[in-house]
Amino acid sequence: MQIAVLLYDRFTALDAIGPYEVLSRLPDAEVVFVAAEPGPVSTDTRRLTIVAERSLDEVPHPDILLIPGGPGEDVLREEPLLDWVRAVHETTTWTTSVCTGSLVLARAGLLDAKRATSHWLALERLRELGAEPVEERIVEEGKIVTAAGVSAGIDMALHLAGRIAGEEVAQSIQLYIEYDPDPPFDAGSPAKAPRELVERTRARSRFFAAG
Amino acid sequence: MQIAVLLYDRFTALDAIGPYEVLSRLPDAEVVFVAAEPGPVSTDTRRLTIVAERSLDEVPHPDILLIPGGPGEDVLREEPLLDWVRAVHETTTWTTSVCTGSLVLARAGLLDAKRATSHWLALERLRELGAEPVEERIVEEGKIVTAAGVSAGIDMALHLAGRIAGEEVAQSIQLYIEYDPDPPFDAGSPAKAPRELVERTRARSRFFAAG
Repeated sequence: MQIAVLLYDRFTALDAIGPYEVLSRLPDAEVVFVAAEPGPVSTDTRRLTIVAERSLDEVPHPDILLIPGGPGEDVLREEPLLDWVRAVHETTTWTTSVCTGSLVLARAGLLDAKRATSHWLALERLRELGAEPVEERIVEEGKIVTAAGVSAGIDMALHLAGRIAGEEVAQSIQLYIEYDPDPPFDAGSPAKAPRELVERTRARSRFFAAG
Repeated sequence: MQIAVLLYDRFTALDAIGPYEVLSRLPDAEVVFVAAEPGPVSTDTRRLTIVAERSLDEVPHPDILLIPGGPGEDVLREEPLLDWVRAVHETTTWTTSVCTGSLVLARAGLLDAKRATSHWLALERLRELGAEPVEERIVEEGKIVTAAGVSAGIDMALHLAGRIAGEEVAQSIQLYIEYDPDPPFDAGSPAKAPRELVERTRARSRFFAAG
């Protein structure tokens, strides 16, 4: 079972590494990090570099495709890359995204009129791209599974592990990575965070979008 | 504020990337990935390579030290590396670890008779190395903060973000990374996972330790 994780300039590291840490521990799983050009890829903070081992052409038929999000997704408009996403989707067992990775799936035309999620700040953009945005942490629509922002990829990958290898295997991975979350604050979603904080974050994000 | 993340052959990626994703978003934070030799560092799965930008000598006074865990920690016995850990600890504001990273702190002599935690499978080894193991997700003991296995580093980093920059900043980071965890199973700790699964995992881990 080959799992392709798509890297690109200014992706968000945890979007990719959370699911990788879960899915790489599935029996017979082979994770491969791919990019338009193999080699070092810089993340959104510019403080971390992760190596893409293969080019898109070298990975034509992954069983699972995972597209992380990040500020860099906005430039993923090149037709060769979107062509690759469309082509591999035809033979994947699961096509997945974390955070704004779902905007790439939408731009490739894979989410037309389909339920999907994204980072809470990107749900409207998802709608503009033709999808039906849903405020849920994980949305499974046929073989397409989309996750909410950044850390939601861990929950999504455990869900997927259960669907692929059964509950017991998924639980053993959860136990191994000791995923018994206990955040010190309860501000992880716009519904739970203080209203002022949500509005300030949204305003700043509009500013960035306009810049 | 300089945050040094120590990389080494066969570390576990999420141990480092979880806290990085939180701490790199603190105001004025500069995260730097360090290793005995700068360059590509392979993780425990052998499927992922992350780049260390600096050698230990180039980062003599980080404000925060973070040591991730992973199967490779067992070979971190070289005196130059332990000397570096001891030396930087003298001037850090916070010295931290995730998972079996605490075994490195213990081997450096920084946890003698101190409360600390680690991956649940490594608590006895932590005791053998002179610490007082505690089954908690985060243990703050003076300026040393240790976290339980792998994913616990995210909770630890949010706790630390609150201590460093205040609750509001920590909450804004939590909201940005949408950390509102909702695991599909409840098997993330030995107290919660099915007993058989815990025993099987423990038995396999003894086998590996003897191998």
